[in-house]
This record gives sequence, structure tokens and C-alpha cells, in this order.
Amino acid sequence: MVKNQVLAWKQEMEHHLREELLPFWVSRCWDEKWGGYLTQWDAEGKDSHVDEKSLLAHMRTIYSLSLAASHGHDTDGQCRVLAEKGVRFAIDRYWDPVYGGFYWLFNRKNEVLIDKKIAYGLSFAIYALSTYTKAFDDPLGLEYAVKCFDLLQKYAGETSYGGYWEMFDRDWKLCEGGSKGGDRKTLDVHMHLMEAFTALYACSGEDIHRRKLEEIILLITTKILHPVHKTGIPQFYGDWSVAPQIKFDIIWGWDRFAEGENQKSNALDNTSYGHNVEFFWLLSEALRILNRKSDAYNPIFEKLLSHAVTYGVDYTHGGVYVEGSIDGEQVYDDSKEFWQQAEFLIGMLDAYLAFGDEKYLQVYENVHRFVFDKMINHEVGEWRALLKRNGDPIWSHMSHSWKVNYHTIRAAVLSLDRMEKLLVRVK
Amino acid sequence: MVKNQVLAWKQEMEHHLREELLPFWVSRCWDEKWGGYLTQWDAEGKDSHVDEKSLLAHMRTIYSLSLAASHGHDTDGQCRVLAEKGVRFAIDRYWDPVYGGFYWLFNRKNEVLIDKKIAYGLSFAIYALSTYTKAFDDPLGLEYAVKCFDLLQKYAGETSYGGYWEMFDRDWKLCEGGSKGGDRKTLDVHMHLMEAFTALYACSGEDIHRRKLEEIILLITTKILHPVHKTGIPQFYGDWSVAPQIKFDIIWGWDRFAEGENQKSNALDNTSYGHNVEFFWLLSEALRILNRKSDAYNPIFEKLLSHAVTYGVDYTHGGVYVEGSIDGEQVYDDSKEFWQQAEFLIGMLDAYLAFGDEKYLQVYENVHRFVFDKMINHEVGEWRALLKRNGDPIWSHMSHSWKVNYHTIRAAVLSLDRMEKLLVRVK
Repeated sequence: MVKNQVLAWKQEMEHHLREELLPFWVSRCWDEKWGGYLTQWDAEGKDSHVDEKSLLAHMRTIYSLSLAASHGHDTDGQCRVLAEKGVRFAIDRYWDPVYGGFYWLFNRKNEVLIDKKIAYGLSFAIYALSTYTKAFDDPLGLEYAVKCFDLLQKYAGETSYGGYWEMFDRDWKLCEGGSKGGDRKTLDVHMHLMEAFTALYACSGEDIHRRKLEEIILLITTKILHPVHKTGIPQFYGDWSVAPQIKFDIIWGWDRFAEGENQKSNALDNTSYGHNVEFFWLLSEALRILNRKSDAYNPIFEKLLSHAVTYGVDYTHGGVYVEGSIDGEQVYDDSKEFWQQAEFLIGMLDAYLAFGDEKYLQVYENVHRFVFDKMINHEVGEWRALLKRNGDPIWSHMSHSWKVNYHTIRAAVLSLDRMEKLLVRVK
Repeated sequence: MVKNQVLAWKQEMEHHLREELLPFWVSRCWDEKWGGYLTQWDAEGKDSHVDEKSLLAHMRTIYSLSLAASHGHDTDGQCRVLAEKGVRFAIDRYWDPVYGGFYWLFNRKNEVLIDKKIAYGLSFAIYALSTYTKAFDDPLGLEYAVKCFDLLQKYAGETSYGGYWEMFDRDWKLCEGGSKGGDRKTLDVHMHLMEAFTALYACSGEDIHRRKLEEIILLITTKILHPVHKTGIPQFYGDWSVAPQIKFDIIWGWDRFAEGENQKSNALDNTSYGHNVEFFWLLSEALRILNRKSDAYNPIFEKLLSHAVTYGVDYTHGGVYVEGSIDGEQVYDDSKEFWQQAEFLIGMLDAYLAFGDEKYLQVYENVHRFVFDKMINHEVGEWRALLKRNGDPIWSHMSHSWKVNYHTIRAAVLSLDRMEKLLVRVK
């Protein structure tokens, strides 16, 4: 590893974060008219006037601002101001005072459009509000993170087979099955609950948060990863038998389906390289917070990382493919979506820090260049949402209810954090 | 079936309940000096002065008084008076205002001796307080039943494999493993949680109580019953692999171990006939409350009942043995304990009502006679705790912290209830 290489990445990333990404959001995210965050921005960074606000975008914005601040990037204090306003606004306007929990979707005036309680959204509420309290020492965030955690334990915890149900009506009745989602358990939600419980425990230090984090790690590693390939399996039935990957009525944008498609064509043999790498580094982070060694998980990590860098990376055009077969033989979708690139950035640096194999830095360089040269719209400040394999844009918008800023700002902040660790090691 | 036979049983049982059992408890259970219930009574029904009060005995007394009243046996209103006092006393003195939940053990002055939170005890709190509210329409009982339910979902629910952890310190930290019990899941606790959630749902009608009841039924029938014999397996590890049946530091008296014995000699091949029959009728009751048909469970019930009446009943001396092998070939303990007799009384009547097989009434008659001729101390009013196979007393005390009145009064009240149903059918 060449120290100068890391310094060059760092300089490029720091410039992107401080001069492009954070200014993009800080300058435009507060809705002065109706309150709450504006998260609908077109290819030029102009308000696309989509009449929708999502719990997810709101919580992810609180998270991104808080994370940036906690790593010293809130140079003018604006992240704090905006995060504080966002936390108070969410509690005031998006929280259900009758049944508890945050609603799911709103219009621009902050009127509730979908009042369902969605575990995916609540996991991000826990993640964001815990990170907020840890960053700014304001107990209000943690108070509501704990409320969400408690509600999930009561209403979402599934006590026959373990894990969590994911989709509920406003009053916490479990939704029906099929596309309503009430008979499914997913990798996505369980991985993000692990991520959320990590931040919650890091903030609260409470034994019950530690215990549920340890339980969900055990659950994911024994039930959700493929027994041979250790790649993530997207969907299960309640008893943890594998379910075909279907499209839910309530979506959050990560699970891309072709027009008119309600079930993946490879519905039982599909894995996301980005998710797998994200899972690797999130679990590594969870183990650090738990102060536990990762040795027992290294065989899983090595298989999963090997699968990702062997099959998921485009060594011709650069970047990470969307998804492919569990055995790795086939890439099903070779386009390049923003979030998988983001997760590879952090994941490859963490993989190198854990295993010391130079190939992870080579992949980092590959993805870093693809992101900086093709994906980031430097003039505007954010990342394009989706590119063709060769890097030509498919979706050029800067943000909508699901894309927003969590993957991009987190990738920048945490890649910089990992680069600092690399540089210490090089010295 | 001869109608006169049922009428004779009914007369005998009603006399026992109204002239012996209820007067025994109503006349002596309130502690006028220190408050709370007195539950330590010797063979003559005199205070045995054991300096101990248990959450279990307290809650079971509330349950028994409430159940008797709800079936029209509270002729002078004393059950209500005593139950009301008991509920208020428990909330005032046995409830932990800091961490929530009821403590486990007290001395006679109601000072806390063991402040642990034990799922077995809390399941009886839910059972008793729900039954109390349903009987007397006082919402205070249900309020605290729901508090216990919510605490169990948060702290006891085990989200890796399903089911509940059972033993906690005061602050809800999970106890250590082995004899501390923190690595075990048991038939006993899960069956009594099913029983508790049945009463809770019957009282509250809340969707979440219904859902958790359905989940625990699924859990028990798929994981806790023997895959072939459908008999109950006493102890499991967290991942539902069978654990040898050990003695816990915190005991509640059902699991009899020989002097100095810490693990059953047949620790992996042991089943309780009484528990199995109790499970049958409790699940039947749960299905009635859920308004669900029992058809899907009939194959389980038939196996389990056949095992119990073939191997568990003493056709020479009468009564029900303590326990034996899972395949039924061996009786390991041929003494006669009070509670197994009690559960067979209700269970055999329910079995006849469900399946119409006369053999269940013959077993009822067998156990009824054994109870009335050998077990009940008619002069004093309660049942002896433990008899030799031939009916000679081993333990003659009328009550201690674990025996108390729940099995005996419930058997009397619910046997009478089932006899009424039988008589309607005969007409």
C-alpha cells in the first residue's frame, strides 16, 4: 500500500464531503414553508416538487447530519441546528400519539399519507435518533429511539421462530401476507435492525440493547445467510423457509423490480453484492461496539467478501453490479446503483483493515474512481441514482424519498474514518 | 354414560368446593398482621409459621378466588373482597417501581427476599390479574397484567430462535446458565405463558394478545412436544435442542428431585403425565377463546391422551403417577402428587367432551375416587400434597408457597363447569 495513494483518496473524499455533499444538504434540506426536510431534488439539484415526504428520508437526514458532526465535519454548526430541528419536528408531527411509533409517508404539508408502522422505517428511526443523541448529547433522540425499540419488541418480535415481523397497520395489527408483507421476514429489515441496535447500544449502554443486538447477529448468521455461500438471502416466510422475492406494496426503493414485475425472475436465487458487503462491515462494527472478537465470523466474512469481489465488481468499466446468483456464476443486473458503490467503499477499507489483503484496496480504488468519475454530479454535489454498466446515467435525480443522503454521506464520513486508521497503520 | 353418575360426581365436587375448599381459604388466607395472603398451612390446617410468602402463592390465590367467583361460587362475596385486597396489596408491595415486574419471594412481613424477575411467576401474575378483571370488572388487574406482558415481550422474548427466556435479575439482566436457568427454555414456563395469554386475551380482546397466544401455541406444538410421542419435553437450550432436566436454584415445586439430586436420572427421557393432560385441556381452552377449531390438533391430543391414560394411570390403586419415560414403557416415579390428579380431573372431562370416548370418563372416575378417598383431607378442607402409590401420605401439609390453591380450586370449579356441559349433552 502506498501512503500517497491513501492521502490522495482522502483529499478527494474530504473535498467531496465538505465542499459538495454537506453543502448540498445543509443549504437546501429544511422546508421553510411547511417544516421538515425537503428530500426531492432533480438532476440539477432543483426541487422536483414531488409532493411526498418519507419517514425514511427524514430519519436518514437526521442520521447523516449527526454522523457528519460526530466525525468533526460540522464546521459551522449547521448540521447540529438542522438535526435538532428535524428531531423535534419528527416527534411533533410524525409520531403517533395514540398507538406509538412513527408513521410511514406524508405529503409536503406533512399530512399523513400512509399511517402504517413499518419496521424498516422504525429501524432507521432508532439508528438516526441514537446517533443524534450520541453526536449532540441531547437525550430526546435516545428517548424516542427507546420507544421505537420497545414497540418493536412488543409488536414485531415473532416468538414462534425468532426474528421480527415487518409490516403493521397504524394500530400495530400485522398486515396481511403476500404483497402486504405480513407473512415475510427479510434480510433487509433484519440487517438494518442490527445496524440500529448497534447505534442504540453504543448510545445507551443498556444490557437489553446489547442482548437484542447479540440475538439478531445470531439470527442473521444462522438463518439469513446462505448455508454454503454465506451470501444474504432476501426473503423468508415466518418459519425461516426461503420465500420467493416478491415486491411489496410498501416499498423503500432498494429492491428494484422491472416494470410490471412483481416477483424477481430469479426469485429464489438472488443476492445483492452491495448488501453482502454492507452486512460485513455493519457486523464488524457491531462486534467492535460489543467489544467482541470477530474470529468466529471470519470464515463467513471471507466467503462473503470473496463472492463480492470476485463476482460483484466490474473490472472493465468499474463499479459494483446490482445483483446476481447465489453461487456467483451469473450477474443478473449489471447496472450500477448508487448505494452498492457507497457500501463497497466502506466495506473494502474495513476488509483491508481486517484481513490485510491488498486486493480489497484495489477494489476500493476501482469503486472510488467509478464513483468520483461517473456517479457523483460534482457540479451539483450529490450522486446520481443509477447508471448503465458503462457509467451512462439512467436515473440522474439527486434525491427522492428513498435515495436521500444516508448512503452517500455515510460512505464519505466512514471512508475518511477508515483512511485515518490506514494512515496510522502505515506510519 | 350414566346421568346419575355425573350427578353424583357433581354433588360430591360441589360439596367439596363450597363446604371444604373455599371455606378453608376464605377463613384464613388474609394476613391481618402484615397484609398479603397466608399460604403456609400444616396437615391440620394450622399456620405452619414458615416465614415465606411467594409471588406464586399470592397470584394463585387471586386467581382461585376470582375463578370461583366468576363461576358463581362466591356466595357471600368474600372471594371478591379478598381478591380485591390481594390485587391492591401486590401492586403496592410486590411490584418493582424501578425496573417493573413483580419480585419473586418475600418474608412474612412482606420484605423482599428474592428480587429476581421469574417468567413463571409473571405468567401467573398475568393469569391471575386478567382472571380477576374478567370476574369483577375492576380494570386495575388488567392494567398490571398488560404491564407484565409488555415487560416479558421486551426482556424475555428471545429473538434468535423464538420463545422466552425465563430467569432474570431484578434489573432484567438475563441470569447465568446452568442452575441459574438463564440458558434454558422449559415446557413449564411456555405452557403457563400460553395459559396466561389465554386469560389475558379473553379479558382484553386485544389483537397483540391474540397474536402472541397463537405464536406460543405454534411454538409449543412444533418445538416442545416430542416429535413422535407428542408428550412434553421438559427442558431445552436456547436453540431448542433438548437439554437434560436439571434442578434450578429458583424452584417452584413442581419439578420434584430426589434429595441431593441436581439432574433427573432420566434427564433426557422424562415426561409428566399430569403436564401432558394439563397441556391438552389448556390448549383446548385457548382454541375456544381464539374461536378456532381444534381439528388440526386432534392427532396431537389423541396421542398425548392415549399416552397419559395408558401409562400414567394407576388402575390398581387409583390416581395418576408423577412421571415416566417418553415412550411410556416405564413409570419412573409412581407416587401421587396433588396437582397431576387435579389436572386429570379437568382433562378427562374435556377429553370426553371432545372425543366422546367412555374410557376418559372411566379414568375420571378412577382419579375422582382416589382424590376424594385418599388425597383430600375432608376434615381440614384441602388436599394432601403427596401420597405413596397406595395412597398413604408422604407430605400431608395443606399448603406452602408452591402448592397453595390453584390446582385444587381450579379442578373443582372447572370440573363442575364441564359436568354442567356433560349434563346438557345427556338431556
